[in-house]
Amino acid sequence: MAGQDIETLIKQIAKLPSLGSRSARRIVLHLLGKRDAVFLPLIEGLTRVADNIKTCEICGNFDTASPCSICSSASRDDSIICVVRDVADLWAMERVALFKGKYHVLGGVLSALEGIVPEDLNIDSLAARLASGKIRELILALPATIDGQITSHYLSSRFKNSGVAITTLAQGIPMGAELDYMDEGTLQLALNSRKTL
Amino acid sequence: MAGQDIETLIKQIAKLPSLGSRSARRIVLHLLGKRDAVFLPLIEGLTRVADNIKTCEICGNFDTASPCSICSSASRDDSIICVVRDVADLWAMERVALFKGKYHVLGGVLSALEGIVPEDLNIDSLAARLASGKIRELILALPATIDGQITSHYLSSRFKNSGVAITTLAQGIPMGAELDYMDEGTLQLALNSRKTL
Repeated sequence: MAGQDIETLIKQIAKLPSLGSRSARRIVLHLLGKRDAVFLPLIEGLTRVADNIKTCEICGNFDTASPCSICSSASRDDSIICVVRDVADLWAMERVALFKGKYHVLGGVLSALEGIVPEDLNIDSLAARLASGKIRELILALPATIDGQITSHYLSSRFKNSGVAITTLAQGIPMGAELDYMDEGTLQLALNSRKTL
Repeated sequence: MAGQDIETLIKQIAKLPSLGSRSARRIVLHLLGKRDAVFLPLIEGLTRVADNIKTCEICGNFDTASPCSICSSASRDDSIICVVRDVADLWAMERVALFKGKYHVLGGVLSALEGIVPEDLNIDSLAARLASGKIRELILALPATIDGQITSHYLSSRFKNSGVAITTLAQGIPMGAELDYMDEGTLQLALNSRKTL
Protein backbone atom coordinates (compact mmCIF):
# COMPACT_ATOMS: atom_id res chain seq x y z
CA MET A 1 0.00 0.00 0.00
CA ALA A 2 2.62 2.55 1.00
CA GLY A 3 6.35 2.10 0.54
CA GLN A 4 8.21 -0.72 2.26
CA ASP A 5 10.00 1.69 4.59
CA ILE A 6 6.68 3.06 5.84
CA GLU A 7 5.29 -0.43 6.39
CA THR A 8 8.40 -1.37 8.38
CA LEU A 9 8.08 1.78 10.48
CA ILE A 10 4.40 1.10 11.21
CA LYS A 11 5.30 -2.42 12.39
CA GLN A 12 8.08 -1.03 14.62
CA ILE A 13 5.75 1.51 16.20
CA ALA A 14 2.92 -1.02 16.59
CA LYS A 15 5.17 -3.12 18.85
CA LEU A 16 5.63 -0.30 21.38
CA PRO A 17 3.66 -0.58 24.62
CA SER A 18 0.03 0.70 24.52
CA LEU A 19 0.06 0.81 20.70
CA GLY A 20 -1.31 -1.48 18.00
CA SER A 21 -1.24 -1.49 14.23
CA ARG A 22 -4.16 0.92 13.88
CA SER A 23 -2.78 3.55 16.23
CA ALA A 24 0.71 3.06 14.74
CA ARG A 25 -0.73 3.87 11.31
CA ARG A 26 -2.44 6.98 12.68
CA ILE A 27 0.81 8.12 14.28
CA VAL A 28 2.81 7.59 11.07
CA LEU A 29 0.22 9.51 9.03
CA HIS A 30 0.32 12.30 11.60
CA LEU A 31 4.13 12.42 11.37
CA LEU A 32 4.12 12.37 7.56
CA GLY A 33 1.60 15.20 7.44
CA LYS A 34 3.61 17.38 9.85
CA ARG A 35 7.16 16.71 8.75
CA ASP A 36 8.79 19.92 9.95
CA ALA A 37 6.59 20.67 12.97
CA VAL A 38 6.46 17.18 14.51
CA PHE A 39 8.35 14.48 12.62
CA LEU A 40 11.85 15.98 12.48
CA PRO A 41 11.74 17.40 16.06
CA LEU A 42 10.64 13.96 17.31
CA ILE A 43 13.57 12.25 15.57
CA GLU A 44 15.85 14.88 17.07
CA GLY A 45 14.43 14.33 20.57
CA LEU A 46 14.77 10.55 20.28
CA THR A 47 18.32 10.79 18.96
CA ARG A 48 19.36 13.19 21.71
CA VAL A 49 18.05 10.83 24.39
CA ALA A 50 19.50 7.72 22.73
CA ASP A 51 22.91 9.36 22.43
CA ASN A 52 23.05 10.71 25.96
CA ILE A 53 21.13 8.26 28.08
CA LYS A 54 23.01 6.51 30.86
CA THR A 55 22.07 4.07 33.60
CA CYS A 56 23.03 5.65 36.92
CA GLU A 57 25.99 3.72 38.37
CA ILE A 58 24.66 4.18 41.90
CA CYS A 59 20.88 3.68 41.83
CA GLY A 60 20.10 2.34 38.32
CA ASN A 61 17.88 5.27 37.25
CA PHE A 62 17.95 6.43 33.63
CA ASP A 63 19.38 9.90 33.15
CA THR A 64 21.65 11.86 30.86
CA ALA A 65 24.30 11.88 33.58
CA SER A 66 25.73 9.19 35.85
CA PRO A 67 25.41 9.52 38.84
CA CYS A 68 21.88 10.66 38.03
CA SER A 69 20.39 14.00 39.07
CA ILE A 70 18.75 12.36 42.11
CA CYS A 71 21.91 10.64 43.36
CA SER A 72 24.01 13.76 42.85
CA SER A 73 21.45 16.11 44.42
CA ALA A 74 22.79 17.71 47.59
CA SER A 75 19.31 18.62 48.81
CA ARG A 76 18.15 15.00 49.11
CA ASP A 77 18.59 12.85 52.19
CA ASP A 78 21.54 10.47 51.71
CA SER A 79 20.53 8.31 54.65
CA ILE A 80 17.26 6.91 53.27
CA ILE A 81 17.12 4.54 50.31
CA CYS A 82 13.81 3.62 48.65
CA VAL A 83 14.07 0.26 46.86
CA VAL A 84 11.91 0.02 43.72
CA ARG A 85 11.46 -2.69 41.12
CA ASP A 86 12.21 -0.64 38.03
CA VAL A 87 12.67 2.88 36.70
CA ALA A 88 8.94 3.17 35.96
CA ASP A 89 8.23 2.72 39.68
CA LEU A 90 10.98 5.20 40.56
CA TRP A 91 9.36 7.79 38.28
CA ALA A 92 5.96 7.02 39.81
CA MET A 93 7.37 7.73 43.29
CA GLU A 94 8.99 10.92 42.02
CA ARG A 95 5.66 12.16 40.61
CA VAL A 96 4.33 12.19 44.17
CA ALA A 97 7.20 14.58 44.97
CA LEU A 98 7.01 13.63 48.64
CA PHE A 99 10.01 11.36 49.07
CA LYS A 100 13.25 13.26 49.43
CA GLY A 101 15.74 10.43 49.86
CA LYS A 102 17.63 8.37 47.30
CA TYR A 103 16.58 5.30 45.30
CA HIS A 104 17.81 1.86 44.39
CA VAL A 105 16.42 0.13 41.29
CA LEU A 106 16.38 -3.65 41.75
CA GLY A 107 15.80 -4.39 38.08
CA GLY A 108 12.95 -6.80 38.79
CA VAL A 109 11.60 -8.95 41.60
CA LEU A 110 12.35 -12.55 42.58
CA SER A 111 10.18 -14.99 40.66
CA ALA A 112 10.11 -18.76 40.91
CA LEU A 113 7.99 -18.90 37.77
CA GLU A 114 10.35 -16.81 35.66
CA GLY A 115 13.46 -18.21 37.33
CA ILE A 116 14.63 -14.87 38.68
CA VAL A 117 17.03 -15.43 41.60
CA PRO A 118 18.75 -12.86 43.88
CA GLU A 119 21.87 -12.88 41.66
CA ASP A 120 19.79 -11.53 38.75
CA LEU A 121 18.85 -8.40 40.70
CA ASN A 122 20.92 -5.40 41.81
CA ILE A 123 21.10 -6.63 45.40
CA ASP A 124 24.89 -6.79 45.81
CA SER A 125 25.16 -3.11 44.88
CA LEU A 126 22.45 -2.37 47.46
CA ALA A 127 24.42 -4.34 50.08
CA ALA A 128 27.50 -2.27 49.21
CA ARG A 129 25.54 0.97 49.69
CA LEU A 130 24.28 -0.23 53.07
CA ALA A 131 27.80 -1.28 54.09
CA SER A 132 28.95 2.32 53.74
CA GLY A 133 27.37 2.92 57.16
CA LYS A 134 25.67 6.16 56.05
CA ILE A 135 22.24 4.60 55.55
CA ARG A 136 19.65 4.93 58.29
CA GLU A 137 16.51 3.54 56.65
CA LEU A 138 15.63 1.25 53.76
CA ILE A 139 12.08 1.67 52.39
CA LEU A 140 10.93 -1.36 50.41
CA ALA A 141 8.52 0.05 47.78
CA LEU A 142 8.07 -3.16 45.81
CA PRO A 143 4.84 -4.24 44.06
CA ALA A 144 2.06 -5.61 46.29
CA THR A 145 2.15 -8.88 44.33
CA ILE A 146 3.24 -12.29 45.59
CA ASP A 147 6.64 -11.93 43.90
CA GLY A 148 7.02 -8.39 45.20
CA GLN A 149 6.23 -9.50 48.75
CA ILE A 150 8.62 -12.45 48.54
CA THR A 151 11.34 -10.06 47.38
CA SER A 152 10.58 -7.73 50.30
CA HIS A 153 10.85 -10.66 52.70
CA TYR A 154 14.13 -11.75 51.16
CA LEU A 155 15.62 -8.26 51.41
CA SER A 156 14.42 -7.66 54.97
CA SER A 157 15.87 -10.96 56.20
CA ARG A 158 19.12 -10.46 54.30
CA PHE A 159 19.65 -6.95 55.70
CA LYS A 160 18.08 -7.38 59.16
CA ASN A 161 21.52 -7.40 60.88
CA SER A 162 22.87 -4.44 58.95
CA GLY A 163 21.75 -1.93 61.58
CA VAL A 164 19.41 -0.22 59.13
CA ALA A 165 15.70 0.32 59.80
CA ILE A 166 13.73 -1.57 57.16
CA THR A 167 10.23 -0.31 56.35
CA THR A 168 7.70 -0.96 53.64
CA LEU A 169 4.83 1.00 52.05
CA ALA A 170 1.50 0.79 53.90
CA GLN A 171 -1.11 -1.47 52.37
CA GLY A 172 -4.87 -1.01 52.52
CA ILE A 173 -7.77 0.63 50.74
CA PRO A 174 -6.54 3.06 48.06
CA MET A 175 -7.71 6.69 48.15
CA GLY A 176 -11.17 7.30 46.70
CA ALA A 177 -12.03 3.61 46.50
CA GLU A 178 -15.52 2.15 47.03
CA LEU A 179 -15.39 -0.83 49.41
CA ASP A 180 -17.84 -2.57 47.12
CA TYR A 181 -15.25 -2.68 44.34
CA MET A 182 -12.33 -3.86 46.49
CA ASP A 183 -11.10 -7.44 46.24
CA GLU A 184 -11.36 -9.58 49.36
CA GLY A 185 -7.60 -9.75 49.89
CA THR A 186 -7.36 -5.97 50.17
CA LEU A 187 -10.37 -5.76 52.51
CA GLN A 188 -8.96 -8.50 54.73
CA LEU A 189 -5.58 -6.78 54.87
CA ALA A 190 -7.11 -3.37 55.57
CA LEU A 191 -9.19 -4.85 58.37
CA ASN A 192 -6.24 -6.68 59.93
CA SER A 193 -4.06 -3.57 59.76
CA ARG A 194 -6.79 -1.26 61.10
CA LYS A 195 -5.65 1.81 62.98
CA THR A 196 -6.98 3.60 66.05
CA LEU A 197 -8.39 7.03 65.25
CA MET B 1 12.77 13.41 37.90
CA ALA B 2 14.67 12.22 34.87
CA GLY B 3 16.85 14.41 32.70
CA GLN B 4 15.44 17.38 30.82
CA ASP B 5 15.94 15.64 27.46
CA ILE B 6 13.83 12.69 28.60
CA GLU B 7 11.08 14.99 29.87
CA THR B 8 11.05 16.82 26.54
CA LEU B 9 10.87 13.54 24.63
CA ILE B 10 7.97 12.30 26.79
CA LYS B 11 6.08 15.52 26.04
CA GLN B 12 6.74 15.15 22.31
CA ILE B 13 5.48 11.57 22.28
CA ALA B 14 2.46 12.41 24.46
CA LYS B 15 1.24 14.80 21.75
CA LEU B 16 1.04 12.06 19.09
CA PRO B 17 -2.43 10.75 18.24
CA SER B 18 -3.82 8.02 20.53
CA LEU B 19 -1.14 8.70 23.17
CA GLY B 20 -1.11 10.60 26.45
CA SER B 21 1.51 11.38 29.05
CA ARG B 22 1.18 8.03 30.83
CA SER B 23 1.56 5.91 27.69
CA ALA B 24 4.34 8.22 26.45
CA ARG B 25 6.24 7.55 29.66
CA ARG B 26 5.74 3.81 29.25
CA ILE B 27 7.02 3.99 25.68
CA VAL B 28 10.10 5.99 26.66
CA LEU B 29 10.91 3.55 29.48
CA HIS B 30 10.47 0.66 27.05
CA LEU B 31 12.84 2.35 24.58
CA LEU B 32 15.43 3.14 27.27
CA GLY B 33 15.34 -0.45 28.50
CA LYS B 34 15.84 -1.91 25.01
CA ARG B 35 18.30 0.50 23.49
CA ASP B 36 19.85 -1.77 20.87
CA ALA B 37 16.88 -4.01 20.13
CA VAL B 38 14.17 -1.35 19.84
CA PHE B 39 15.31 2.24 20.41
CA LEU B 40 18.09 2.55 17.81
CA PRO B 41 16.22 0.56 15.10
CA LEU B 42 13.17 2.79 15.66
CA ILE B 43 15.23 5.96 15.21
CA GLU B 44 16.71 4.41 12.08
CA GLY B 45 13.25 3.56 10.72
CA LEU B 46 11.90 7.04 11.44
CA THR B 47 14.93 8.71 9.88
CA ARG B 48 14.75 6.55 6.77
CA VAL B 49 11.08 7.45 6.26
CA ALA B 50 11.61 11.16 7.05
CA ASP B 51 14.50 11.33 4.59
CA ASN B 52 12.79 9.50 1.76
CA ILE B 53 9.12 10.33 2.07
CA LYS B 54 7.49 12.08 -0.86
CA THR B 55 3.96 13.18 -1.68
CA CYS B 56 2.99 11.55 -4.99
CA GLU B 57 2.80 14.25 -7.67
CA ILE B 58 -0.15 12.48 -9.33
CA CYS B 59 -2.47 11.25 -6.57
CA GLY B 60 -1.16 12.80 -3.33
CA ASN B 61 -0.34 9.49 -1.58
CA PHE B 62 2.70 9.30 0.69
CA ASP B 63 5.46 7.04 -0.61
CA THR B 64 9.20 6.84 -0.92
CA ALA B 65 8.86 7.44 -4.66
CA SER B 66 6.88 9.92 -6.75
CA PRO B 67 4.83 8.86 -8.67
CA CYS B 68 3.90 6.46 -5.87
CA SER B 69 3.88 2.67 -6.17
CA ILE B 70 0.13 2.68 -6.87
CA CYS B 71 0.28 5.34 -9.62
CA SER B 72 3.25 3.67 -11.29
CA SER B 73 1.82 0.15 -11.05
CA ALA B 74 1.17 -1.31 -14.51
CA SER B 75 -1.22 -3.93 -13.11
CA ARG B 76 -3.75 -1.36 -11.88
CA ASP B 77 -6.60 0.05 -13.93
CA ASP B 78 -5.69 3.52 -15.19
CA SER B 79 -9.27 4.32 -16.17
CA ILE B 80 -10.83 4.37 -12.69
CA ILE B 81 -9.99 6.98 -10.06
CA CYS B 82 -11.15 6.67 -6.47
CA VAL B 83 -11.36 10.07 -4.78
CA VAL B 84 -10.54 9.98 -1.05
CA ARG B 85 -10.29 12.69 1.60
CA ASP B 86 -6.80 11.91 2.87
CA VAL B 87 -4.02 9.34 2.85
CA ALA B 88 -5.52 7.58 5.88
CA ASP B 89 -8.66 6.86 3.84
CA LEU B 90 -6.54 5.76 0.87
CA TRP B 91 -4.73 3.26 3.10
CA ALA B 92 -8.06 2.09 4.51
CA MET B 93 -9.30 1.37 0.97
CA GLU B 94 -6.04 -0.43 0.17
CA ARG B 95 -6.41 -2.68 3.22
CA VAL B 96 -9.58 -4.07 1.65
CA ALA B 97 -7.39 -5.03 -1.34
CA LEU B 98 -10.44 -5.07 -3.61
CA PHE B 99 -10.07 -1.84 -5.56
CA LYS B 100 -7.59 -2.14 -8.41
CA GLY B 101 -7.76 1.36 -9.91
CA LYS B 102 -5.89 4.54 -9.03
CA TYR B 103 -6.53 7.16 -6.34
CA HIS B 104 -6.79 10.89 -5.91
CA VAL B 105 -6.27 12.43 -2.47
CA LEU B 106 -8.36 15.60 -2.07
CA GLY B 107 -6.52 16.76 1.04
CA GLY B 108 -9.75 17.45 2.94
CA VAL B 109 -13.42 18.12 2.28
CA LEU B 110 -15.31 21.35 1.74
CA SER B 111 -16.38 22.91 5.03
CA ALA B 112 -18.34 26.09 5.58
CA LEU B 113 -17.48 25.94 9.28
CA GLU B 114 -13.73 25.63 8.75
CA GLY B 115 -13.76 27.89 5.69
CA ILE B 116 -12.45 25.22 3.31
CA VAL B 117 -13.34 26.16 -0.28
CA PRO B 118 -12.71 24.21 -3.53
CA GLU B 119 -9.44 26.09 -4.13
CA ASP B 120 -8.03 24.63 -0.89
CA LEU B 121 -8.44 21.05 -2.16
CA ASN B 122 -6.62 19.14 -4.92
CA ILE B 123 -9.53 19.54 -7.35
CA ASP B 124 -7.73 21.26 -10.20
CA SER B 125 -5.25 18.40 -10.43
CA LEU B 126 -8.20 16.00 -10.49
CA ALA B 127 -9.78 18.01 -13.34
CA ALA B 128 -6.48 17.78 -15.23
CA ARG B 129 -6.41 13.99 -14.80
CA LEU B 130 -10.00 13.75 -16.08
CA ALA B 131 -9.17 16.02 -19.04
CA SER B 132 -6.59 13.46 -20.24
CA GLY B 133 -9.54 11.51 -21.65
CA LYS B 134 -8.28 8.17 -20.31
CA ILE B 135 -10.61 8.10 -17.29
CA ARG B 136 -13.81 6.06 -17.49
CA GLU B 137 -15.11 6.21 -13.92
CA LEU B 138 -14.70 8.44 -10.87
CA ILE B 139 -15.59 6.79 -7.54
CA LEU B 140 -16.28 9.33 -4.80
CA ALA B 141 -15.23 7.59 -1.57
CA LEU B 142 -15.63 10.58 0.73
CA PRO B 143 -16.77 10.45 4.38
CA ALA B 144 -20.51 9.94 4.97
CA THR B 145 -20.63 13.22 6.89
CA ILE B 146 -22.44 16.41 5.88
CA ASP B 147 -19.20 17.97 4.65
CA GLY B 148 -18.23 14.80 2.82
CA GLN B 149 -21.61 14.64 1.09
CA ILE B 150 -21.46 18.32 0.13
CA THR B 151 -18.03 17.71 -1.37
CA SER B 152 -19.37 14.72 -3.33
CA HIS B 153 -22.19 16.86 -4.67
CA TYR B 154 -19.79 19.62 -5.64
CA LEU B 155 -17.50 17.21 -7.49
CA SER B 156 -20.30 15.39 -9.27
CA SER B 157 -21.87 18.63 -10.52
CA ARG B 158 -18.49 20.04 -11.53
CA PHE B 159 -17.52 16.94 -13.53
CA LYS B 160 -20.95 15.85 -14.79
CA ASN B 161 -20.19 17.02 -18.34
CA SER B 162 -16.72 15.48 -18.47
CA GLY B 163 -18.00 12.24 -20.01
CA VAL B 164 -16.86 10.25 -16.96
CA ALA B 165 -19.20 7.98 -14.98
CA ILE B 166 -19.40 9.31 -11.42
CA THR B 167 -20.25 6.81 -8.67
CA THR B 168 -20.16 6.84 -4.91
CA LEU B 169 -19.83 4.22 -2.18
CA ALA B 170 -23.10 2.52 -1.15
CA GLN B 171 -24.56 3.67 2.14
CA GLY B 172 -26.63 1.60 4.56
CA ILE B 173 -26.33 -0.74 7.51
CA PRO B 174 -22.69 -1.75 8.11
CA MET B 175 -21.76 -5.43 8.19
CA GLY B 176 -22.48 -7.19 11.48
CA ALA B 177 -24.54 -4.32 12.90
CA GLU B 178 -27.56 -4.71 15.17
CA LEU B 179 -30.48 -2.56 13.95
CA ASP B 180 -31.11 -1.65 17.57
CA TYR B 181 -27.77 0.18 17.75
CA MET B 182 -28.08 2.06 14.45
CA ASP B 183 -28.87 5.76 14.44
CA GLU B 184 -32.13 6.84 12.81
CA GLY B 185 -30.39 8.55 9.88
CA THR B 186 -28.74 5.31 8.84
CA LEU B 187 -31.95 3.29 9.24
CA GLN B 188 -33.90 5.85 7.21
CA LEU B 189 -31.28 5.83 4.47
CA ALA B 190 -31.07 2.04 4.40
CA LEU B 191 -34.86 1.80 4.14
CA ASN B 192 -35.07 4.39 1.36
CA SER B 193 -32.27 2.68 -0.58
CA ARG B 194 -33.69 -0.83 -0.07
CA LYS B 195 -32.91 -3.37 -2.75
CA THR B 196 -34.99 -6.16 -4.30
CA LEU B 197 -33.65 -9.61 -3.39
